[in-house]
Amino acid sequence: MSLQQHRAEFPYLAGKAYFNYGGQGTMPRSAIAALQDANIRFQELGPFSSAANSWIVQEGNLTRAAIAKELGTTADTITLTEDVSVGCNIALWGIDWQAGDHILLTDCEHQGIVAAVQELQRRFDLEVSVCPLLETLNSGDPSAIVEQFLQPNTRLFVVSHILWNTGQVLPLQEMVEICHARSVQVLVDAAQSVGVLPLNLTELNADFYAFTGHKWWCGAAGVGALYVRPEARETLHPTFIGWRSVITDAKGTPECFQSDGRAFEIATSAIPLYPALREAIAFHQPFAETRYSMICDRSAYLWQRLKALPNVKCLKTSAPASGLVSFQLENGKHPQLVQYLEARNFFLRVILNPNCVRACVHYFTTEEEIDALAHAIEEFL
Amino acid sequence: MSLQQHRAEFPYLAGKAYFNYGGQGTMPRSAIAALQDANIRFQELGPFSSAANSWIVQEGNLTRAAIAKELGTTADTITLTEDVSVGCNIALWGIDWQAGDHILLTDCEHQGIVAAVQELQRRFDLEVSVCPLLETLNSGDPSAIVEQFLQPNTRLFVVSHILWNTGQVLPLQEMVEICHARSVQVLVDAAQSVGVLPLNLTELNADFYAFTGHKWWCGAAGVGALYVRPEARETLHPTFIGWRSVITDAKGTPECFQSDGRAFEIATSAIPLYPALREAIAFHQPFAETRYSMICDRSAYLWQRLKALPNVKCLKTSAPASGLVSFQLENGKHPQLVQYLEARNFFLRVILNPNCVRACVHYFTTEEEIDALAHAIEEFL
Repeated sequence: MSLQQHRAEFPYLAGKAYFNYGGQGTMPRSAIAALQDANIRFQELGPFSSAANSWIVQEGNLTRAAIAKELGTTADTITLTEDVSVGCNIALWGIDWQAGDHILLTDCEHQGIVAAVQELQRRFDLEVSVCPLLETLNSGDPSAIVEQFLQPNTRLFVVSHILWNTGQVLPLQEMVEICHARSVQVLVDAAQSVGVLPLNLTELNADFYAFTGHKWWCGAAGVGALYVRPEARETLHPTFIGWRSVITDAKGTPECFQSDGRAFEIATSAIPLYPALREAIAFHQPFAETRYSMICDRSAYLWQRLKALPNVKCLKTSAPASGLVSFQLENGKHPQLVQYLEARNFFLRVILNPNCVRACVHYFTTEEEIDALAHAIEEFL
Repeated sequence: MSLQQHRAEFPYLAGKAYFNYGGQGTMPRSAIAALQDANIRFQELGPFSSAANSWIVQEGNLTRAAIAKELGTTADTITLTEDVSVGCNIALWGIDWQAGDHILLTDCEHQGIVAAVQELQRRFDLEVSVCPLLETLNSGDPSAIVEQFLQPNTRLFVVSHILWNTGQVLPLQEMVEICHARSVQVLVDAAQSVGVLPLNLTELNADFYAFTGHKWWCGAAGVGALYVRPEARETLHPTFIGWRSVITDAKGTPECFQSDGRAFEIATSAIPLYPALREAIAFHQPFAETRYSMICDRSAYLWQRLKALPNVKCLKTSAPASGLVSFQLENGKHPQLVQYLEARNFFLRVILNPNCVRACVHYFTTEEEIDALAHAIEEFL
């Protein structure tokens, strides 16, 4: 299948120039069909019946396995979640915090995670500090900064693999090694890396890697997952708990938690999202080897086109290493630009810190889309 | 519209005798259509765009408002959740626990809630005890038992409004009054009461009332809600936190939590479930006034039919006050019965404690369905 044919399998890309994969990916036809079919199948099977319950269990198993295979790990390390934030919260609230423990955040983390860490700080009397990685976008050594900011009481480093605001890819494996050498665990917000970077979570060795199916994987919104490293699982306690978390005895009384990632799953979810996610993951398979370099080719092209525009400044001074291209207008009219573009079926978003507009390209973004975007921005200016 | 026509609007009841509403309700045609249409609409709108984001916000607002209206409260008291367990966990983990605090559970709570309370006990060094309400199914005063089991250090009473195993309707308002008189908060597992009982949560005055849309309301699985009494909201802290929980400043930094029930919502969900739930709630409107008495009529009829069978014993010695009818076979072959029935398109479930089979009737369950079930059980015996 040619890339053009492949791209035509996204029915709701038609008539759009879409640059919001970092917010949410548009679903391929096969994933939409899987979602709609599963909604009906669920009703046909029960919806509550032995057959439906077996189907639910199987869907969970198949989905954990598909995710694990895609990310170089095993299904027991995978917890299905509603979204990235739930995955991060499972890790954050499952650690046995002691007053005075230190959490290190970067200055580029998403507001939801920042707020969760602030609440943890309040509840457990923790110390929280923030290391400045934003300034390393074009020069500097982010790992060295992290190392400087670690303290003897640091227990957790919270970091994004790809920064959602600037698109910077952090040297995560190096950071994990630095942290582990000091017995610091690493929680990764992987919202922007899964579906983009070639990933082997076993080798990467981060303790917690939280991601979602609905961004770069182009699944339906409402299902994501958390990877927990086996060694980290031994000390992580479930917090939000439901029937999926536990093993029960013959009288239905909870005996113990599940011994794998299911210990952190809670209760009833929208199961039809699972086959949709698997279809979305499978859809990208033909481009598994080339996807990341294709994304980088396209973001380099977009970056060059934007750089050539007068009164536009790309945050990066060299071609990006991810699909996220953030830029500023000299006149600062970012919300107006996004609104202007959306009225013309170009989809981008504003980022508030740093103040910029973010355009995301996927491996199936076309040069024509990028050219048209550059023209539209020029017209706006 | 006649009841027969109304019932015909459940496409996946055709060919089934369905008695698992307490597990999951089958969806009306309008709710299925709303779900499928919204899945497409979401993709059309973006899926990530200003238009899609406005739609998401509006869907949340409309859904909280529809739930609130149905339950005699205001939208600010409603938090949208994934399921009942998430609602219970929000309450359980949001209380400012001190070592030695006491939680009182009943002996009929669902395994997921029991496990969550056990983990809370372990983490915060709490005292947990269980009051015996199962034995009050046919005689006795459950409120008096609760009152006996309250202690000076009791801070929370965890109770189901309708017991999921026996179908007993507890005198919740009386229990709330008893608890509040001793400054004990009340967390209600309302999995079996919402969509069945006429409810006014403002008058009921429980502190936390956790429920789901996918059981008696017949919405899609994956969306539920938590009611938090305004007075209780003042002291309840968000635990799992994401972008939906917070208000941010001009730089996107979290400033404070939302001042209403959204403070306990987390992040990305499957939004198309929301319009499906509203359609399901609206679908039942023509029977809003009569629904509960219709359910009781039908459960009385089922109870009589079962009682008349040799070797079958209903747990209740009088007609039930809910749609749940639990019964035992003298030969104890409950899993075999459920399997036998499901092979013949009768859908029931086994309950492990007390050991029984549970059949649920809704207001649109027919006498023919009940008669056919009684015959099928007779054939099995």
